[in-house]
Amino acid sequence: MSVTAAKGFTAAGIAAGIKENGNPDLALVVNTGPRLAAAGVFTSNRVKAAPVLWSEQVLKGGLVSAVVLNSGGANACTGPQGFQDTHATAEKVADTLSLNAGEVAVASTGLIGVTLPMDKLLPGVDKAAGELSAHGGEKAAIAIKTTDSVHKTSVVTKDGGWTVGGMAKGAGMLAPGLATMLVVLTTDADLEADVLDRALRNATRLTFDRVDSDGCMSTNDTVLLLASGASEVTPEYAEFAEAVREVCADLGRQLIGDAEGASKDIKVDVVNAASEADAVEVGRSIARNNLLKCALHGEDPNWGRVLSAIGTTSAAFDPNLLNVAINGVWVCKNGSVGEDRELVDMRYREVVITADLAAGAESATIWTNDLTADYVHENSAYSS
Amino acid sequence: MSVTAAKGFTAAGIAAGIKENGNPDLALVVNTGPRLAAAGVFTSNRVKAAPVLWSEQVLKGGLVSAVVLNSGGANACTGPQGFQDTHATAEKVADTLSLNAGEVAVASTGLIGVTLPMDKLLPGVDKAAGELSAHGGEKAAIAIKTTDSVHKTSVVTKDGGWTVGGMAKGAGMLAPGLATMLVVLTTDADLEADVLDRALRNATRLTFDRVDSDGCMSTNDTVLLLASGASEVTPEYAEFAEAVREVCADLGRQLIGDAEGASKDIKVDVVNAASEADAVEVGRSIARNNLLKCALHGEDPNWGRVLSAIGTTSAAFDPNLLNVAINGVWVCKNGSVGEDRELVDMRYREVVITADLAAGAESATIWTNDLTADYVHENSAYSS
Repeated sequence: MSVTAAKGFTAAGIAAGIKENGNPDLALVVNTGPRLAAAGVFTSNRVKAAPVLWSEQVLKGGLVSAVVLNSGGANACTGPQGFQDTHATAEKVADTLSLNAGEVAVASTGLIGVTLPMDKLLPGVDKAAGELSAHGGEKAAIAIKTTDSVHKTSVVTKDGGWTVGGMAKGAGMLAPGLATMLVVLTTDADLEADVLDRALRNATRLTFDRVDSDGCMSTNDTVLLLASGASEVTPEYAEFAEAVREVCADLGRQLIGDAEGASKDIKVDVVNAASEADAVEVGRSIARNNLLKCALHGEDPNWGRVLSAIGTTSAAFDPNLLNVAINGVWVCKNGSVGEDRELVDMRYREVVITADLAAGAESATIWTNDLTADYVHENSAYSS
Repeated sequence: MSVTAAKGFTAAGIAAGIKENGNPDLALVVNTGPRLAAAGVFTSNRVKAAPVLWSEQVLKGGLVSAVVLNSGGANACTGPQGFQDTHATAEKVADTLSLNAGEVAVASTGLIGVTLPMDKLLPGVDKAAGELSAHGGEKAAIAIKTTDSVHKTSVVTKDGGWTVGGMAKGAGMLAPGLATMLVVLTTDADLEADVLDRALRNATRLTFDRVDSDGCMSTNDTVLLLASGASEVTPEYAEFAEAVREVCADLGRQLIGDAEGASKDIKVDVVNAASEADAVEVGRSIARNNLLKCALHGEDPNWGRVLSAIGTTSAAFDPNLLNVAINGVWVCKNGSVGEDRELVDMRYREVVITADLAAGAESATIWTNDLTADYVHENSAYSS
């Protein structure tokens, strides 16, 4: 399913030997047309990996015929050599598949500051090209995993016979302006690049941009949307945008659900904000509060830490009018003690925090995780 | 010697029964004059505890005759009742010691969102007043501890016969705009309130404001500086400001050294920044990067996480000119791989990260800690 659920795409995932443990580490996604329209959204981190710099240029043309993705190395902070390696990878894909290198996007994930083993990566491209198939989406999704415990795919098929599908990887360094995520979405809808771009930006703004697992922004985040036109259907914009948003939301939830070491999936709903920007700022501040994240891990409905997080923002609010619910129990009313915190049931994986700013009618939701000893162990032992 | 090192002060620390475990929880510091000049700096969190709101008003007058501090309860997010309780505490101190309540500062620390047991606190004031002594500084420092493993004091005595001393508490929720800290500094120098204010703001800006243990800003931070004039010496401003800065720096380092669960004290030196504000922004971003803090806990000199943290800031820099040293080894040069990371010795508690922005001549230092499983355990088990 994955990136090959939509017609007009082939994919492959293979082990090129980039990862020392021999796990799959190279994926190829090819748009077989008839159309090549594409859009992309990239990390807003100012320290950008070589493949991000390359793919940003490719996407300016609105045409992507193939995407080559590797795990096992981020190719970030690797200087001119890193950019040459990305360029060589795109050229290799282009040569192998008789494409234009300027239409080959590249994405990488793994350890920062290490150059890729090109002697393994380039032969891997040959191997992957030989395994391209209309059923290769699953294998491609597996090949882009790093610390992910499961591979992540999602598909929406619409009446009228068109589909949006995709794959994602990411399990840490998940933060605003995307997460450490590589996402490739494909559709057989027949749409122009500017429409894809609009739909993709709208979707990422409301989904991946609001996933904030650990406040750490990656150098490599890449979300691509490729359209083949193979369904010969041109859906209405609103319907298409909603399908893209739906797939992104599903993949975003899968990322949060698989976050490193997490034991709780936390939904932060900020309501009655003066503006959407205020709601997002408050949601992020709550989502990034380490003390709160520890408390929730301990199943302690510590609303004082929610209030102290809200208090650090510039959002419009009166401290004496703030209300906070945890799992539906309004433990804080008017900035002070509300319902009995003993009423809060914290036994389940999902935790919902509702922060009522009592300052307007806008709202936003941020998704995050708890902070656990397992997160510390995973990230102190794994140089990523 | 703490707050009674300077002449003209008495202090006491007793167990009032606010803490259920019977540990000391109430401190009193009294300025016996001849002068009552004082200055204060408070949390910039917009959700402020009742004692902060009260003490801010007291300090506007520039006169503080006594400070009453309690651990075992923050009296934050406690509504009108909380403010009444703070007011009643100041009145009780004033009545007991024949002072003006408008010159009694109040500071509290502990769990947010719980009202104080006034039936225990008010008799505790009587008990503390009965134990006031010119040797009580140590006991006062002990009584303000929460999760602190040790009490924290510092004293600087200058030629000319004047002294600046103080006490601090704080072991978590340490972040900008101060930390979860209560600090009382005393001096027997003979100075006006506006001079104290200038010296205190200058000192906190460069010390407590640059301690960022876990990115979480408290509702209760309070730093007070009281002058008794008992030495009958009026030092030069520069010399006095330096003594205050010295005591604040020492106490700040003690806070970092005792941070919850920490196994590393991390000094982040940002150099060659275009502005001091840039240097501070970059330093904070590095200090708050959970992934980096985990890596350092694991003694992994993961400079890629330093670069990804720098990349999230708005500071002036060219990614291709960034240099990073860890414990003196330049592991990143010109935004790419530098000296061998195997050369970095990570065995000791102190870690120094030097981030060279190559964008100017300004610099700043931020102090932080690593992120450990012990931090998670302490903060998931302790409702604070």
